[in-house]
Amino acid sequence: MISELREKTGAGLIDVKKALDEAKGNPEEAITILRKKLGNKIDKLATRATKEGLVHSYIHVGGKVGVLVEINCETDFVAKTDDFKSFCQDVCLQIAAAGPAYVRREEVTEAEITKERDIATSQMEGKPAAAIQKIVEGKLEKYYSQVCLLDQPFVKNPEKMIKEILAEKVGKLGENIQVRRFTRYQLGA
Amino acid sequence: MISELREKTGAGLIDVKKALDEAKGNPEEAITILRKKLGNKIDKLATRATKEGLVHSYIHVGGKVGVLVEINCETDFVAKTDDFKSFCQDVCLQIAAAGPAYVRREEVTEAEITKERDIATSQMEGKPAAAIQKIVEGKLEKYYSQVCLLDQPFVKNPEKMIKEILAEKVGKLGENIQVRRFTRYQLGA
Repeated sequence: MISELREKTGAGLIDVKKALDEAKGNPEEAITILRKKLGNKIDKLATRATKEGLVHSYIHVGGKVGVLVEINCETDFVAKTDDFKSFCQDVCLQIAAAGPAYVRREEVTEAEITKERDIATSQMEGKPAAAIQKIVEGKLEKYYSQVCLLDQPFVKNPEKMIKEILAEKVGKLGENIQVRRFTRYQLGA
Repeated sequence: MISELREKTGAGLIDVKKALDEAKGNPEEAITILRKKLGNKIDKLATRATKEGLVHSYIHVGGKVGVLVEINCETDFVAKTDDFKSFCQDVCLQIAAAGPAYVRREEVTEAEITKERDIATSQMEGKPAAAIQKIVEGKLEKYYSQVCLLDQPFVKNPEKMIKEILAEKVGKLGENIQVRRFTRYQLGA
């Protein structure tokens, strides 16, 4: 059970044991505890400078789609780990397959957000304002999950978002990790 | 000598034999004849649509510099040849090593050209106008050879420009070939 929890949350052995104690052996509750703890850890790490990392690429079979990505971490030591490399490869695969437009939602332009809000609102005419707002926000979340890499469901495991895969790597490697930029070329497109 | 001329010009066997006949066995003159002929051929091919090709990438050892490139040709048949693939690889190497800003000189902005002209002109004060113009044009050519991929000397063989390597491939493969776009990432830059 410990290794399953480590796999699922990216947490270290000691943290998993502590969480299981605290949750009195309930794995679901242990995961919640670990996620909160991991969230705090990631928030704390997120301000640290990321000057190292890797430039990584992926060309889909046949050479019609290709991806170039830069992912940063804090030290060259971490950049050289298999964990970091496999994350770079997964991110490349994701971009090749799912074709996001942005890394993160903060990069989506105001104009686009306004447009998406307007479309969603116009579909809801006649409903109560509070309900409309909730539905519109839901549609906006859906939009982010389509165009933003970090909000996309991971193509190799759609139950997790890319930002969750990222959080697990941060938890495991103990460094701030940032997807800085990517380019995706599709032949003739 | 025939295979050397083919290697140097990218021309076919029959064309090389004809050129050698016409040049009465003088290899230098034969090259000039072949270059002219090849130039005509490239000009003729240059208007043909290039909808096929490859997306290709290169990551320099250590993963700190990476390149993604799209190169187009007319048919998927040519895109799959070793000749085309090796050209894609050479272009990637070139971009990684020499870091051009543009594919071709037509992409350099007017503002940049004006700036380069102004710098060069200001260095020439007091010289006759005709001399200045010639020197300034020379400096502009030099600038193109620094920032434009096609005008750069090939890092693996600085006696040839990338556009000459391209012309040889066009001559050999008999299709219009265009470097459409590239992206170069340098870690942290």
